[in-house]
Amino acid sequence: MKKTISPAPLLYPNPVLLVCTYGSDGRPNAMTAAWGGICCSEPPCLSLGIQKNRYTWENITARGEFMVCIPSESLVSETDFFGIASGRHLDKFAETGLTPVPSDVIDAPSIEECPVALACRARNLMHIGSHTLIIGEILQVLADEEVCEADGMPSLATIRPLLYDAHRKMYYAVGEPAGKAFSSGMKFRRTVYEP
Amino acid sequence: MKKTISPAPLLYPNPVLLVCTYGSDGRPNAMTAAWGGICCSEPPCLSLGIQKNRYTWENITARGEFMVCIPSESLVSETDFFGIASGRHLDKFAETGLTPVPSDVIDAPSIEECPVALACRARNLMHIGSHTLIIGEILQVLADEEVCEADGMPSLATIRPLLYDAHRKMYYAVGEPAGKAFSSGMKFRRTVYEP
Repeated sequence: MKKTISPAPLLYPNPVLLVCTYGSDGRPNAMTAAWGGICCSEPPCLSLGIQKNRYTWENITARGEFMVCIPSESLVSETDFFGIASGRHLDKFAETGLTPVPSDVIDAPSIEECPVALACRARNLMHIGSHTLIIGEILQVLADEEVCEADGMPSLATIRPLLYDAHRKMYYAVGEPAGKAFSSGMKFRRTVYEP
Repeated sequence: MKKTISPAPLLYPNPVLLVCTYGSDGRPNAMTAAWGGICCSEPPCLSLGIQKNRYTWENITARGEFMVCIPSESLVSETDFFGIASGRHLDKFAETGLTPVPSDVIDAPSIEECPVALACRARNLMHIGSHTLIIGEILQVLADEEVCEADGMPSLATIRPLLYDAHRKMYYAVGEPAGKAFSSGMKFRRTVYEP
């Protein structure tokens, strides 16, 4: 039996993303975002929910492109700072010591210290309420060699991204492997043939 | 220095969600989904990316409502099965032994064994490519008493949801707390006054 809680944006877990843009003055900026996820496989797209009063919103709508960097758990303090301060007023890269890197394919910087970066072009906007949904097509994936495994691709275990509990305002690390997909559920395929 | 990887829907982590609906015959169904996330705080909304050939797509577009349940790590095998089999051909609840529960507020069932459920009404659709984005307004949150803390609200630590590495097709558990938001980054607020 479950109890009822007032409607709230409670999803578990939320990702922890650094959305990187250039301002109108050409300075690199990034903001921390937890409202987002993949929304399409082909073309690969992600969605972000951003408030229209954000500096990042201005930058994305002005330039049409943004980089989504995935910080590892070792960057938790820097990542948190990118969610506290606004790039309108200060240079968050200078404050934290993180390094903006220009992109070959889009008009937005990546962050050297983040193990993975997704170069995105905004292709749709949808105003919802407090937040506007931005669909970004992923044009390129960048990854540190150190987080790539034998097949040349990164993994959740090597990236060690952060997770976010938005109600408790707490970051968590990734834990142990819990099972293989399209595998651990096969034991229930017992009574019916499934093509 | 980063290497370039072909564009792909690589985000870390993805959530692991069970999207519950009723079919045209009134039977409860659920499918596992990892393409999704919160997209708006007020009204609280989440987005899901679903393929139009899915049984769940038919059900959501026919009834306009769906329940997003969050399975805990102990349900990894059942959750995986809900992503392997299609409800067109069998009753996944009967196969796994999980229990569908009617909702007071929407025309879609929750799952008794999942600690948290979000009752959603579809309010927008956007065709993107292989997947269609569905925006669901969260009308009600249901939570087991056992995962609620002193303030009556659940937490990532008590829910123990799964995480998903889509490229590796691996589930992971939640790890240790990694930091407090709006707190661990304050140490960088050293040189500039931030209102």
